[in-house]
Amino acid sequence: MNRDKLLLTPGPLTTTLRTKLAMLNDWGSWDDDFNAVTASVRASLLKIIHGADSHVVVPLQGSGTFSVEAAVATLVPREGHVLVLDNGAYCKRAVRLTSLMGRRCTVLGFDEAEPVSVTALDEHLRGDATVTHVVLIHCETSAGIHNPLKQVAAVCESHGKGLIVDAMSSFAALEIDARNTRFDALIAASGKCLEGVPGMGFVFIRKAVLDACAGNSQSLAMDLHDQYVYMEKTGQWRFTPPTHVVAALHAAIEQFEAEGGQSARLARYTQNYQALIKGMTGLGFRPFLDPAIQAPIIVTFHAPSDPSYDFKAFYAAVRARGFLLYPGKLTQLETFRVGCIGAIDATDMVQATHAIADALQDLEMRR
Amino acid sequence: MNRDKLLLTPGPLTTTLRTKLAMLNDWGSWDDDFNAVTASVRASLLKIIHGADSHVVVPLQGSGTFSVEAAVATLVPREGHVLVLDNGAYCKRAVRLTSLMGRRCTVLGFDEAEPVSVTALDEHLRGDATVTHVVLIHCETSAGIHNPLKQVAAVCESHGKGLIVDAMSSFAALEIDARNTRFDALIAASGKCLEGVPGMGFVFIRKAVLDACAGNSQSLAMDLHDQYVYMEKTGQWRFTPPTHVVAALHAAIEQFEAEGGQSARLARYTQNYQALIKGMTGLGFRPFLDPAIQAPIIVTFHAPSDPSYDFKAFYAAVRARGFLLYPGKLTQLETFRVGCIGAIDATDMVQATHAIADALQDLEMRR
Repeated sequence: MNRDKLLLTPGPLTTTLRTKLAMLNDWGSWDDDFNAVTASVRASLLKIIHGADSHVVVPLQGSGTFSVEAAVATLVPREGHVLVLDNGAYCKRAVRLTSLMGRRCTVLGFDEAEPVSVTALDEHLRGDATVTHVVLIHCETSAGIHNPLKQVAAVCESHGKGLIVDAMSSFAALEIDARNTRFDALIAASGKCLEGVPGMGFVFIRKAVLDACAGNSQSLAMDLHDQYVYMEKTGQWRFTPPTHVVAALHAAIEQFEAEGGQSARLARYTQNYQALIKGMTGLGFRPFLDPAIQAPIIVTFHAPSDPSYDFKAFYAAVRARGFLLYPGKLTQLETFRVGCIGAIDATDMVQATHAIADALQDLEMRR
Repeated sequence: MNRDKLLLTPGPLTTTLRTKLAMLNDWGSWDDDFNAVTASVRASLLKIIHGADSHVVVPLQGSGTFSVEAAVATLVPREGHVLVLDNGAYCKRAVRLTSLMGRRCTVLGFDEAEPVSVTALDEHLRGDATVTHVVLIHCETSAGIHNPLKQVAAVCESHGKGLIVDAMSSFAALEIDARNTRFDALIAASGKCLEGVPGMGFVFIRKAVLDACAGNSQSLAMDLHDQYVYMEKTGQWRFTPPTHVVAALHAAIEQFEAEGGQSARLARYTQNYQALIKGMTGLGFRPFLDPAIQAPIIVTFHAPSDPSYDFKAFYAAVRARGFLLYPGKLTQLETFRVGCIGAIDATDMVQATHAIADALQDLEMRR
């Protein structure tokens, strides 16, 4: 049937009809009505991290990666030195964009099955005083790891280093509290756990470092300081905003707040995760990560050991039953991923595992 | 009443309900169904400029300015030298983004009421052999000027210089034919004359220069060569695409083709322009530009000479009647602008001039 498949991915996600219906209006990007939508979104975002006193938030056009690149370009001076804590593909992407723009970049590597080590970070910072900024991916969706943000922030603060957090897949689901966790920048996007549609990111910047960001960026479009100053002055975006995406995010945030905010969203995603794990282990699948370090965002499973296994065929058989899985992203092992986020609940996850069971039967495949 | 105002602006524009309804689906960005939408959009775009043989097209997340910056970063080598033909604010923006990213940039300035001079360009290129690329804004919406693309392209070709065309406001309305007009890159966006919603741009790149673009960009997110190579290999966007915006553009292009393509769209916009001019001159307003160089995209009018004139009050009074005007962007004169583009027709323009007449009466203002 011609119905949308449920997206069990790290995003874009399944959104509610109410969120999508918010895109049925055209807005003048210069008009007060639209400026009010932008202002409301910004105020709501700051509330989620309890950051109204300590931070500003700057929205940016483009995908989340655009906002990550913009955060590094805006926060790190040209002569800065970035240390990336690397336990997955999104860390490697941060290394690449930092090096490409000409900022000095050092990688502190970890196993992709382990959280980054706070002790190793502390030791590295003791040994290298030239580091100015640390980059952490909060939830590394390559494997699905929950990295220890609060502890990393404490170490960075004790060494007087800036911290840039890619919270793309964790923001609005995992707890992030600016009152007890110091970061200079934290990045997320519309199409993730807030359950908006994709097309914009946003960066929280600590007020104490904001002024020093002027003139750092070698990119006009990605200069978050310039975007911030213009937006404060005019209420408008510097360049054409994705008006419909912003309106959808506004509607998604209303629903997020009505659901009970971050803790309620985490509770629902945790139920999704538990239903998924129960169903999948019942089918004989093994999750890749230790549950203690697994975020309830996206789960990596070992692929079936059956020699006939082929992800494309498996994907197609599950897709035919209404669910989109996600390929694995690990370098050594054959895996696939299942997302627990979006406008879906535990009954959907149970149905997904039934669909996976039927797909395996069709394909005559052993786990 | 709570109805959308008609957007008489340079974008975002009024779109059809059919275009907006295309955003009521959620798409997996990794899924074949969505890849087919992207492929269809790309093929249609190439057809509009008759460029399937000579060019490729690379879509990019973000506003049109992101695509302009990406085109300069991708096309111009680090040691390149850009000459910007400047007769307006968008030209100055091109200068700023080029200089910021560290490319050498020279400005050839013209009056904002005149098209750029092909003779002056020819003379400049004779005198300065170090220029590698020329940047032209096809329709400078600061005033609304139609710049002579074909003639500029011929001069660039005769000097063996690359040409980068910002066709943001002209693409799909004014004629652009890659078979008789040589350009290395041409940039436009979803939310302009194709009448999609804002959130993505796209860049046509001449096949003959494509390979040489590898490694030019200092930005990961804006590397159009990297985006192209990945898209050709996988059918997917490198980073999360604005799925709903892409789907809306696909629906908008279907309607564009059904209307009769570029010539039909130009005919409708020309009728809009004529209805606007007739109504406004009847009210005593004077357009800023000589009609011979005016594109039927957006029209700059001299503000009323009445000393009580205030754009905000004028805007509000017209807005209350259902139409959004646009502020002027000229440096010396008090002006305002009225767009002729979007999913609107000549009867809408007539109604707009009635609304303007009523607003003036309310404000007791002389022209």
